[in-house]
Amino acid sequence: MNNEEHRMVKKITQKSKDFSKWYVEIIRKAEVADYAPIKGMIAIRPYGFAVWENLQNLLDLRIKRTGHSNAYFPLFIPESLLEKEVEHLEGFSPEVAWVTHGGEEELEERLAVRPTSEAIIGNMYSKWIKSYRDLPVLINQWANIVRWEKVTRPFLRTTEFLWQEGHTVHETAEEAQKETMMILELYKEFAESELAIPVISGIKTEREKFAGAEATYCIEALMADGKALQMGTSHFLGQHFSKVFNIRFEDRNQKLQYGWQTSWGVSTRLIGAVIMAHGDDSGLKLPPRIAPIQVVIVPISVGDWKKTVLPVATRIKDELKQAGIRVKLDHREEFTPGWKFANWEMRGVPLRIELGPRDIKNNQAIAVRRDTGDKIPYALDELKEKVGAALVDIQKSLLKVAFKYRQENTHEVDNFEEFKSILENQRGLIKTFWCGASACEDRIKNETMGTIRAVLLDKDKRGKANGKCVLCGKEADKLVYFARAY
Amino acid sequence: MNNEEHRMVKKITQKSKDFSKWYVEIIRKAEVADYAPIKGMIAIRPYGFAVWENLQNLLDLRIKRTGHSNAYFPLFIPESLLEKEVEHLEGFSPEVAWVTHGGEEELEERLAVRPTSEAIIGNMYSKWIKSYRDLPVLINQWANIVRWEKVTRPFLRTTEFLWQEGHTVHETAEEAQKETMMILELYKEFAESELAIPVISGIKTEREKFAGAEATYCIEALMADGKALQMGTSHFLGQHFSKVFNIRFEDRNQKLQYGWQTSWGVSTRLIGAVIMAHGDDSGLKLPPRIAPIQVVIVPISVGDWKKTVLPVATRIKDELKQAGIRVKLDHREEFTPGWKFANWEMRGVPLRIELGPRDIKNNQAIAVRRDTGDKIPYALDELKEKVGAALVDIQKSLLKVAFKYRQENTHEVDNFEEFKSILENQRGLIKTFWCGASACEDRIKNETMGTIRAVLLDKDKRGKANGKCVLCGKEADKLVYFARAY
Repeated sequence: MNNEEHRMVKKITQKSKDFSKWYVEIIRKAEVADYAPIKGMIAIRPYGFAVWENLQNLLDLRIKRTGHSNAYFPLFIPESLLEKEVEHLEGFSPEVAWVTHGGEEELEERLAVRPTSEAIIGNMYSKWIKSYRDLPVLINQWANIVRWEKVTRPFLRTTEFLWQEGHTVHETAEEAQKETMMILELYKEFAESELAIPVISGIKTEREKFAGAEATYCIEALMADGKALQMGTSHFLGQHFSKVFNIRFEDRNQKLQYGWQTSWGVSTRLIGAVIMAHGDDSGLKLPPRIAPIQVVIVPISVGDWKKTVLPVATRIKDELKQAGIRVKLDHREEFTPGWKFANWEMRGVPLRIELGPRDIKNNQAIAVRRDTGDKIPYALDELKEKVGAALVDIQKSLLKVAFKYRQENTHEVDNFEEFKSILENQRGLIKTFWCGASACEDRIKNETMGTIRAVLLDKDKRGKANGKCVLCGKEADKLVYFARAY
Repeated sequence: MNNEEHRMVKKITQKSKDFSKWYVEIIRKAEVADYAPIKGMIAIRPYGFAVWENLQNLLDLRIKRTGHSNAYFPLFIPESLLEKEVEHLEGFSPEVAWVTHGGEEELEERLAVRPTSEAIIGNMYSKWIKSYRDLPVLINQWANIVRWEKVTRPFLRTTEFLWQEGHTVHETAEEAQKETMMILELYKEFAESELAIPVISGIKTEREKFAGAEATYCIEALMADGKALQMGTSHFLGQHFSKVFNIRFEDRNQKLQYGWQTSWGVSTRLIGAVIMAHGDDSGLKLPPRIAPIQVVIVPISVGDWKKTVLPVATRIKDELKQAGIRVKLDHREEFTPGWKFANWEMRGVPLRIELGPRDIKNNQAIAVRRDTGDKIPYALDELKEKVGAALVDIQKSLLKVAFKYRQENTHEVDNFEEFKSILENQRGLIKTFWCGASACEDRIKNETMGTIRAVLLDKDKRGKANGKCVLCGKEADKLVYFARAY
């Protein structure tokens, strides 16, 4: 690749110099998304949307395997419905986009464009659920959501985003609690296996929990700039919404009971997480499991390559495709191989296969890994197996690298000076004890911009039963992760 | 089944007595959808949504095979953007839901909740398309759409609906025209192969075409009440939108040109079409290709059936499942077999397998076809093959029956008195000649409520080159289908 080509493709800000700028540039250069002419909204371009489709399929499979079905509920929620759960309304009303006119007419009642669907779904469930025989109700919805955000960033916080929201109803508190935790584990396994992003899981503090939930559980990841990102939440709703929306059933003893509910979701924010967790100065690095193109074949276009190289490249493509690998043969003539290398690196294709006349003579092709840059010759008659194995290895390796990064940037701290210094300088996750008082949580946030990302569940504390609160020094049984966050 | 059970499940209005009432009742009894507490909006329940998911997968496959990719564009469109194409705005403005407030603040500019996406997509395309090398752009979007309708009916016309909308840009008018026709054929093949609904295709008149299109092509089907239903449209947009949104590219001769566009869509209305085209007084009849459950196994619960019948039923279920058949074993104890029969008939499951102790002794099971009611004993060791063949046959047979119905209800007419009488009495499709004058089209609509559903394309006229206009009697070269329509 000559310098000119290099500049054409590579002109992006370095990740280490200006992370935010790098993030936005990479999204646009790799054609993942683009700004739309509406405040805080983006258009997800085909390449970015293909990542979402892969991710969606892999998650949908898990949601269905665990007994859930998809359904679809209205986009609009009448104001009076949203008002019913006061805490819920107060949490969301500053963010609601309101429809006030239909055609030429002013509406009698304003309609909220759904900021989340507990209210409208609760209303429908109250009609559908009569008896314990109707339970559990295990429904999921893939939908678009609108929240009127002041500060936005592509995928991480946008006025509109896509998500899935599960809404379940159970006979008992125990069952609902079990569902909440099952989904939390499902999300964690999904993030680690498919997105190659290691996550911590735990419970949110009162301050950070979902408006209207009894308890919010979450998965959180550490991004490459040392900030934490909430990647998914699973809420135990108790009977808050069922009491408000009158979701009652006749139980096994013919007594009327309120249903026990959960709700849970992940969103297109996950695309942002993948970009931030794995990308580098050359562009995206997509985990093979969700990459729209897993392998790109670039023929070296010298001499009579169309007669010699192209037929072999085509045969390889067909062979890989037949093996279920998402493969592309880039035989465009208007671009040089060097330009193509840089272009597919920008787009984060996990494995590139270079094939020239000399390679064919040697009965080999050169495989280049996007994650490590390693160049390895593969014998042509072993290519399919080698490629398959490399994709598995890249997936594992991305997770390992991200895990190591998180380990190196997790600080066990027991005094507030060190705490402050870390959040101001290198950032990362701080693992420490907290007494449970909101006053301490608030003061820490005001002084350091650090928030409690998750309170560890007892089973994850591994013997560390007690310590002293990092701020006030009082006896504390809550082991928590603090970080600055998106 | 005793009478009590029969009434419980079957209490629906007869199709022949009150088609509209039958339609709505079947939707609610089969748990396809339910009314939501917002004017003209419905919630699509899991069973109905599973039909949509099957339909969506089968269509998405075709859209991708023909080279298109999915993407996602914003839900909101600024008023100023929508105003740019005047004809388009005038067509849609009476139906737009307007967002005027975000949180507590009034917006500076009203935002339309997308009634269709030509405007917002055109705006984005103008940024993405620079050169002929960027063409064709072949993008599809699966999304929700809002149109403020005065009279609504579940699936057929609702304030919100789900659809796909393709938006393509091409170098030449010919290419765009070719795409328009390719999609029209794709829709036709899809409707007939997957939904088992025969459709006629053709071009819309000026009066009926899409606001802003140069030409609208459509597929139309005849429903069981003799009314026509538009099932999909494919628009040749010419350069209308590209001129307004400035979608320009440098052509192969370095000259700036406006792009040539198409757009095309089908929606959740197709669910309504399937219900109306095939259903009967016992409920839905779902074509196997889109049925969420293709086969239901009902064990006859007598004697020690759990020890004798259930293990065999389970083995059959596993065997069918392994063969890729969507099968359910209904072993609930709180319902009798008779109740289950009626329940799964209501839900339109194509094939029921009844299995009792006596059947097992005879090494057989009884298969009951939903479409014909035929009961056929299948030998257990041939069950898998028989079931597979039956599903294929049911699919074909539903199409054949619907085709025969349409044939019997298509009237070739050449005088207006007969025309009027048919539309007032038995309804159906009227095939006749029309002179092309709007005056005739308008008068016919005013007097008969009949509209031109499609003008036949020349290739479909099969020798019938000319005739006389059914109203004015003048020389006419347009062979058309008239009908009352949804």
